[in-house]
Amino acid sequence: MAQPNQTPMDRSDVTRITDLPQLAGQAATLSGWVTHTRSSGKVAFVVMRDGTGILQCVVVKTQVSAEVWERFQALTLETSLQVTGEVRADARAPGGVELGVTDLVILGPSALDYPIQPKEHGVDFLLDNRHFWLRTPRQVAIARIRNEVEQAIHDFFYERGFLRVDTPILTAAIGERSGLFATEYFDEGNAYLAQTGQLYGEAAAAAFGKIYTFGPTFRAEKSKTRRHLTEFWMIEPEVAFNDSAANIRLQEDFVAFLVQRVVERRGAELKELERDVSKLEKVKVPFPRIDYGDAVAILQKKGSAVQWGDDLGAEDEALLVEDHETPIFICNYPKEAKAFYMKENPADPRTVLCDDMLAPEGYGEIIGGSQREDDHDKLLARIHEEKLPVDAYSWYLDLRKYGTFVHSGFGLGLERTVAWICGTPHIRECIAFPRMMHRLYP
Amino acid sequence: MAQPNQTPMDRSDVTRITDLPQLAGQAATLSGWVTHTRSSGKVAFVVMRDGTGILQCVVVKTQVSAEVWERFQALTLETSLQVTGEVRADARAPGGVELGVTDLVILGPSALDYPIQPKEHGVDFLLDNRHFWLRTPRQVAIARIRNEVEQAIHDFFYERGFLRVDTPILTAAIGERSGLFATEYFDEGNAYLAQTGQLYGEAAAAAFGKIYTFGPTFRAEKSKTRRHLTEFWMIEPEVAFNDSAANIRLQEDFVAFLVQRVVERRGAELKELERDVSKLEKVKVPFPRIDYGDAVAILQKKGSAVQWGDDLGAEDEALLVEDHETPIFICNYPKEAKAFYMKENPADPRTVLCDDMLAPEGYGEIIGGSQREDDHDKLLARIHEEKLPVDAYSWYLDLRKYGTFVHSGFGLGLERTVAWICGTPHIRECIAFPRMMHRLYP
Repeated sequence: MAQPNQTPMDRSDVTRITDLPQLAGQAATLSGWVTHTRSSGKVAFVVMRDGTGILQCVVVKTQVSAEVWERFQALTLETSLQVTGEVRADARAPGGVELGVTDLVILGPSALDYPIQPKEHGVDFLLDNRHFWLRTPRQVAIARIRNEVEQAIHDFFYERGFLRVDTPILTAAIGERSGLFATEYFDEGNAYLAQTGQLYGEAAAAAFGKIYTFGPTFRAEKSKTRRHLTEFWMIEPEVAFNDSAANIRLQEDFVAFLVQRVVERRGAELKELERDVSKLEKVKVPFPRIDYGDAVAILQKKGSAVQWGDDLGAEDEALLVEDHETPIFICNYPKEAKAFYMKENPADPRTVLCDDMLAPEGYGEIIGGSQREDDHDKLLARIHEEKLPVDAYSWYLDLRKYGTFVHSGFGLGLERTVAWICGTPHIRECIAFPRMMHRLYP
Repeated sequence: MAQPNQTPMDRSDVTRITDLPQLAGQAATLSGWVTHTRSSGKVAFVVMRDGTGILQCVVVKTQVSAEVWERFQALTLETSLQVTGEVRADARAPGGVELGVTDLVILGPSALDYPIQPKEHGVDFLLDNRHFWLRTPRQVAIARIRNEVEQAIHDFFYERGFLRVDTPILTAAIGERSGLFATEYFDEGNAYLAQTGQLYGEAAAAAFGKIYTFGPTFRAEKSKTRRHLTEFWMIEPEVAFNDSAANIRLQEDFVAFLVQRVVERRGAELKELERDVSKLEKVKVPFPRIDYGDAVAILQKKGSAVQWGDDLGAEDEALLVEDHETPIFICNYPKEAKAFYMKENPADPRTVLCDDMLAPEGYGEIIGGSQREDDHDKLLARIHEEKLPVDAYSWYLDLRKYGTFVHSGFGLGLERTVAWICGTPHIRECIAFPRMMHRLYP
């Protein structure tokens, strides 16, 4: 498949900065926004952006009309303009071309109080102005990498014969726990915004074999860490007849594929972000598997107070990954630390067949996966133990009543994965309009 | 790119029915569910499915153990089983192979009251058992076509340099009209589930040039037609500097691409659905453009009571498409019939620069598109006219205050498009777990 930004212009589109290298030596007209200007009094430069690239436009006073020269004087940050001129190859320019301007038209002036100025701004101010913050080079680079990761996800599964299944956001009482957003649903009582598509994914895996979901999920949690959003995107594959070991192989193949794809196709953006690409190049399979029990022993040797049975916190995770250059798996946690639907480990029934994938460089958990409990009675007992509403789970239990099957799956957090690949500490920059506890605008 | 189901098995996966043609002459073990059985007393047949295909397994009494023959007798509809045997080429078999069974193990019995039996069921019953209904051949075919359409959408935009942008589902008062689902959002008051990502898409288009959204949208409307869901998926491209004419060209290129892709790659599924493929093959650009005023004249000639100024209803739409074999565009509706953000038509200020794309064969509107109002004061006046909360639109108005720009976009309804391509009259079959006014389960 061709890379973006290298395809011919299509007939439904106007000329973009990214199209210019193939137009060198020709005249072109294109539109964009001013990012900065400078002038010697005789030669003026307008640097403009159009979302696909950055272009330096050169205006020579003696070669343009007085009107054009005057219009140049009126340009302010983020003025939208249309320029016409000759596309000239210039190895020093971004994209390898600059434009020798013959005409310049102002499309939309921009008031001098444009919020994002070339200086430091506080993060709350930037988030209030997210619609403008998105236009800055670092945010554009993150958005392009997110797009690349998303397309790579679809390509990975499509080429392997998985069906994408869009599971419902509005669900009945299923998953009635803390952290749910509720909404009135006609005469049916409350509906809840899905925290996961997994349970529906399990039903779909029985119908289609190999499936994945790709959608928004919701947590009404009062978390204010750099790793939490109230609305974030998850990718949840589910595979019939895969056991936990096959599930783990799928996870490492998948994550290694995503990282390699970004390194191959998004070098310019990783450079803009000053990402140490050598660290990403080390992400090759296999990733180490560490049994939960061994992880506890390692942590205790490193001075952690963690005891067998505890869930692992962010600090414990950081201690475990510091010895590794690839993501690692922590496998088979104690039952109490994990969700009710995970399959009891036949080799040690205190534990379940599951894994967390922890990203290197301290980015923490990006995947949680497990084999699912396929024994009807054990699953029902767990639903009772967790005091979940059995009626709402009736269809889910059905899957174990009629031809139950070994199956496994996992959930990858998209923003956390993008944050790690970009090397950006806070996931709020990894989605266009982040939603947090105090953030519903813009 | 390789087609799905033609790639080698990957190391994280077990053998699937779809892998068998390349294993002809070899032994294989695979798992699935029983769809039916028959026996002559000496030779028995098990037809099984695994979500990737259908396989006929042949059990010869004299060639298997007594235990295996007994297990065959115990098979019921949707029993899950593991079979081992020799893969044999057989041109008459689906997929071109059958399995000569040497071993057969029951993984999960299936009670005789399995809900979906090979007989007619009412649609409410089928929807109550959607988790099982999904396993039937017609539903599998629709799911595969939906998957193909989704991947084709991503490929179309990726190859043309669009960035996918995931716009928020939880939004503030923006779009405070009827038909909104509301949820309490911490101390911020209510949040509303997005009916569209377009307004955010406009902000993103100014940052990234060409973008599209791909996500669920919500309507709390008491519609009970075959064309309405409360939760459905929309694809909303938005392009900076494209005018309405370019927007329309993009729409027809896009839809023609999707249809062609399904015809090329999903022939087996279209056949399963008994779709008249010759009708899909006629979907080639250009699609006719009919001005709203001309459409009214055509309708009046056909006996419709429609008057200039009215919106067009489903019956009017059907009268307009009956003369055409491709989708058609109805362009430039009266302002009152359309949303506040559409750009006033300079040639006739009673109308706006917009279009609806109507699918042939009576499938109705699948796209609504428009050039957006880029004049700050005109947009503000429209917001006041519609009595929308100006504060919530402050960031949206900002886009017109600082470097305003010509831009256009559209929204394609995914389920409606899949329904048309599949030739299925009700869109409830075109999503895995449909949500309707009285339907929140499973």
